[in-house]
Amino acid sequence: MSLKDKSSLLCIVTGGSKGFGRAISLEVCKEWGVNRRIQKIVLVLVARDKMTLENTAAECKSIYNDVTLYLLSHDLSDHDSILTLIEELNALFCHGKEQFTEVMLFANAGRVGDVSKPISSHFDPKILQKYFNLMLTSNILISSWFTSELKSVKKTIIFVSSLLAIQPYAGFSLYSAGKAGGHMLFRCMAEENPEVRVLVYSPGPLQTDMTDDVLKNMCFKKTQERFTQMKFLKPEFSVSILFGILKDDKYKSGEYIDIYDIIKQE
Amino acid sequence: MSLKDKSSLLCIVTGGSKGFGRAISLEVCKEWGVNRRIQKIVLVLVARDKMTLENTAAECKSIYNDVTLYLLSHDLSDHDSILTLIEELNALFCHGKEQFTEVMLFANAGRVGDVSKPISSHFDPKILQKYFNLMLTSNILISSWFTSELKSVKKTIIFVSSLLAIQPYAGFSLYSAGKAGGHMLFRCMAEENPEVRVLVYSPGPLQTDMTDDVLKNMCFKKTQERFTQMKFLKPEFSVSILFGILKDDKYKSGEYIDIYDIIKQE
Repeated sequence: MSLKDKSSLLCIVTGGSKGFGRAISLEVCKEWGVNRRIQKIVLVLVARDKMTLENTAAECKSIYNDVTLYLLSHDLSDHDSILTLIEELNALFCHGKEQFTEVMLFANAGRVGDVSKPISSHFDPKILQKYFNLMLTSNILISSWFTSELKSVKKTIIFVSSLLAIQPYAGFSLYSAGKAGGHMLFRCMAEENPEVRVLVYSPGPLQTDMTDDVLKNMCFKKTQERFTQMKFLKPEFSVSILFGILKDDKYKSGEYIDIYDIIKQE
Repeated sequence: MSLKDKSSLLCIVTGGSKGFGRAISLEVCKEWGVNRRIQKIVLVLVARDKMTLENTAAECKSIYNDVTLYLLSHDLSDHDSILTLIEELNALFCHGKEQFTEVMLFANAGRVGDVSKPISSHFDPKILQKYFNLMLTSNILISSWFTSELKSVKKTIIFVSSLLAIQPYAGFSLYSAGKAGGHMLFRCMAEENPEVRVLVYSPGPLQTDMTDDVLKNMCFKKTQERFTQMKFLKPEFSVSILFGILKDDKYKSGEYIDIYDIIKQE
């Protein structure tokens, strides 16, 4: 981050209402609003559910009242919905609209998929197609817009990856495929866009609704047991490590950093 | 491979009409038909183009006349087409039909995507959706059918991966995302299905139409130059290495083997 007090910052957080995305949104307000006093912060939260979006927005405001918030409620597994989102983003921030000193895209949206059945019981192509729309197609379209349409001095994309993108576990076939695809997509994007800083960050195992879902519904007992024994991190803690990496700004664009690469060193 | 002279073998090759898929089909006829004299070989070639399918089928027959061939012409980027393929496979090989000693699925179908423009110029969600249908959804549906519906003493899935699944290059964002997704999908599948042998094989840079396309149309000069200097392998050679691995049958299920892991050792 090269932010100075007089900077204006636009942050777009997909999956911004819950779990890790919510923690990112709150940290933007706390760290760059309250602590660093960045002159102008615009925060765009993208998520499906309007009510959780509004709850997170209220939390953001309670931390830093000066934040400008846009809540865009869209289902990123539906491609018409993705296109509507892009149109809204265009209307808000392009075509002669005000430019920002820095713009950041937190590509965080994702779902774990149905872990209650093995991959060999997935027979519905429409469900699979929607899943990869969310995990891959929406990421391509939003980051393409971000890279090519949005004007700014500095652009950063943070892709929220997972250990499961590189390590196989029974029961996570879909999620692994989606995260691995995104992982390499953003690493290639860094090669294609030297003017954009790209960080691929694995936040570690987090205490979120997603984890509760896995613990409750995972059909492979071995994986479930492994999960039960795992030490989960608070999203807020993992976000603070991520923001430390962004503040230092020393990562190589396209680099993959797992939280445990950092914690180990401390 | 545990094939004996009296075995019956069913091989399904997606993308079976051209390039690496064609080389696999010919090697099945040569190695397991002519050389090993497996009693019964049924070869199912799946590809879009009927004419190239027929050409490859004629080549197979000319090598080993006793092979039983089924040519299934389908576009795996279209999910109705994938479902029709599954119905045809069911009609041919399930519901009380004859069982095989061994069945093999070569999950080889794939396209490099449009390399003439950077990922940030991809704005059409329908094209992207179709791409991931081909690279991911079709692989899930076909291998789910293969794993759960097909009866056999021994089942093997070979996923044709790529160095690009783990190493980022400018211009290959789509292909990397698709291959990385498949790569992890099949590695997880191995964890979920201990009764199925799964090999993830990277065939090296091959002399195929796909390579010609990349050399001609790649929009990133650095990648194009790197490709121009590359030493390409004949598909037949890479297939012979793959069949050596299958014959030895010593790989750990779900293992990723790059051809250069083997060639280096020799």
